[in-house]
Amino acid sequence: MENSTRGTLLLIFLTISTSLATITSPWMPMDGNNPTNSYCLSWRLAIETNNVRAWRIVPLQCMRYVEVYMLAGQYDRDVQLIVEHINVYLNEIVLPGDGMDAWILDVDDTCFSNVFYYRLKRYGCDPYDPTGFRTWAMKGGSPAIQPVLELFNNLIETGFKVFLVTGRDEETLREATEENLNDQGFTGYERLIMRTVENKKQSAATYKTTIRKQLMEEGYRIWGNVGDQWSDLQGEYTGNRTFKIPNPMYFVP
Amino acid sequence: MENSTRGTLLLIFLTISTSLATITSPWMPMDGNNPTNSYCLSWRLAIETNNVRAWRIVPLQCMRYVEVYMLAGQYDRDVQLIVEHINVYLNEIVLPGDGMDAWILDVDDTCFSNVFYYRLKRYGCDPYDPTGFRTWAMKGGSPAIQPVLELFNNLIETGFKVFLVTGRDEETLREATEENLNDQGFTGYERLIMRTVENKKQSAATYKTTIRKQLMEEGYRIWGNVGDQWSDLQGEYTGNRTFKIPNPMYFVP
Repeated sequence: MENSTRGTLLLIFLTISTSLATITSPWMPMDGNNPTNSYCLSWRLAIETNNVRAWRIVPLQCMRYVEVYMLAGQYDRDVQLIVEHINVYLNEIVLPGDGMDAWILDVDDTCFSNVFYYRLKRYGCDPYDPTGFRTWAMKGGSPAIQPVLELFNNLIETGFKVFLVTGRDEETLREATEENLNDQGFTGYERLIMRTVENKKQSAATYKTTIRKQLMEEGYRIWGNVGDQWSDLQGEYTGNRTFKIPNPMYFVP
Repeated sequence: MENSTRGTLLLIFLTISTSLATITSPWMPMDGNNPTNSYCLSWRLAIETNNVRAWRIVPLQCMRYVEVYMLAGQYDRDVQLIVEHINVYLNEIVLPGDGMDAWILDVDDTCFSNVFYYRLKRYGCDPYDPTGFRTWAMKGGSPAIQPVLELFNNLIETGFKVFLVTGRDEETLREATEENLNDQGFTGYERLIMRTVENKKQSAATYKTTIRKQLMEEGYRIWGNVGDQWSDLQGEYTGNRTFKIPNPMYFVP
């Protein structure tokens, strides 16, 4: 080979190597060696472990990271793995079978996904917009999160009474929420418990604790409690096991 | 350029592109598009959020992932971000200044790191070895986790009484642990509380809850509680805020 050709080859090799090594491919965002992705991975871990609380918006530099996380497969795999571990736990339970075995599921971003709404809100880089969200929720078009739908069906087949507990407003959103659940295959639950006038001003954690306390007082055993927010899972009467579904798009206090 | 040379160039280009696109570079393990890394990332999230509990060993396929996570920077950045958020919280606190403001830190893999011990245990792919760990701990050679050392010094300067609460055995490990802490710059803490004969059979969660309860009864306000295990942070009297330091190498019940 001539020297000039050899030089050209070397140049091409170096160019390709460098560009591939430093590229921020939109579909490889979990790469911790890119400083932005590494930061966003740390940030995501910090919010998911409840180390960072009361955050209002996603850091702007993580918008693309969150988009890719939510849509390119990692979120799906994260949820799938959690549901697999819930199934391991379920297999250990021997149900008394007196009809008082309860399981609690949150609704938004637990049973069904609002990622297509949050896409319009830059995946959480825009602040919470209650009017915008209500308009979205009224449409009832949120798609099921498939592994959670499978869990839901599994729970009902196993003999659990499934209680859906949501911070959504009873008065304005019951019909749309029921329809959305029904359309997506969430049928056969025991109750859909929504926020009424009495608990409108409570934080999600207080409201949901109140609801769980009422269920306990009715005699239910809460075997499991699944939600995408720590406010679903903390407080009192949290249930025998809690499971946190990922959500890097918003925080509910 | 001759056709054959052009062909060679194309071949080299394709070879390099393909190999770089599919390579599992040991230093790019956070890439979620590699199936193994994607699984290990899901697994790490699941254990850090306490969704997966009582796990005995790291999945073998994640050994290299955990190694790279611990040693190539992401772990350091994760801890750094948590400490930054602890500092945000600290800046909001107005201390009464009566000498009863307490902060709790765990010791192993919170104040100092045992990663060089766990390297010999395949980063947690081998099961827990109490004798091996005691031998390691007796040497007192665990290096400080730098951001936590900075937090420690900051807490003491701010006026907190820092209580180090560890599951290590009082009788056999006090001297080595005190020396290790001292050598690494952890000086000026209020007490190093270790496991005595009385609480030897308790789970870490029960033992640590007992200790925190005693501190509360002495009149201390526990402003913060930092540990690498959920058993450091759950139970009763957990403190006003808890912070989970990552640890994908082992689980303490």
